[in-house]
Amino acid sequence: MKAQRVTSKFADKMSFEMEVNNHKFMIDAGEQVGGENKGPRPKALMQAALAGCTSMDVVSILRKMRVQFDDFQVHVDADVTEEHPKHFTKMHVTYEFTGKDLEKSRKKIEKAVNLSEKQYCGVSFSYKQIMEVSSKIILNEI
Amino acid sequence: MKAQRVTSKFADKMSFEMEVNNHKFMIDAGEQVGGENKGPRPKALMQAALAGCTSMDVVSILRKMRVQFDDFQVHVDADVTEEHPKHFTKMHVTYEFTGKDLEKSRKKIEKAVNLSEKQYCGVSFSYKQIMEVSSKIILNEI
Repeated sequence: MKAQRVTSKFADKMSFEMEVNNHKFMIDAGEQVGGENKGPRPKALMQAALAGCTSMDVVSILRKMRVQFDDFQVHVDADVTEEHPKHFTKMHVTYEFTGKDLEKSRKKIEKAVNLSEKQYCGVSFSYKQIMEVSSKIILNEI
Repeated sequence: MKAQRVTSKFADKMSFEMEVNNHKFMIDAGEQVGGENKGPRPKALMQAALAGCTSMDVVSILRKMRVQFDDFQVHVDADVTEEHPKHFTKMHVTYEFTGKDLEKSRKKIEKAVNLSEKQYCGVSFSYKQIMEVSSKIILNEI
């Protein structure tokens, strides 16, 4: 199946206007390499792809399970090589929930995360073939 | 080396606020799966990572080579599976330049693209291990 085309259009110095699904945002390099930090670095969008993909899966599955929470964040920490071509060797995903009585839903939350990692998230599926991908769940009771 | 943390924070329905290198933007699902299209789909950020990574390399290298152009866009077309986990099986990168006397710089442009693909772009390096990655160069003389 064909995916929608993504375009990066040169703007100025090291900045580009990115168009993804008809939404536009800037990407840029940092000042130390000639950029002006007008937007994220492109490689970090690989982390964003994983964070977004699995967070949408988990929200969607937990909604079906009727699990409620006040806040949900997914953090992706990563290791990158220092030598060119600089690429990721590891990503660690932290699923952080805040809410009441979350411990009672721990099994369901673990199941939702597991379903995303094993069955639904195509980004996770792809990355696991080329780097270590690990995860943990944090439940903040309020 | 540690990369900067990327965070996806639940907003509403299927939308999340993504924070990448301290820049924020929304991601969202399409209406057909319960979203409101407030931002790009997360998986498409994998295409954006490749487009951005190689476009920055090429601009940077061509600047050193003193090659000039009026417009430069990188398009990433992709094939994705229809079955879960939906993942990319192919990406095709189109480097499209518009300007005067570009044919005279064709060899330098080809070299810049080649250097990005083979030596510098860590996203390209990673993806080539898990999918077909191809490219072509278009020069629009004005």
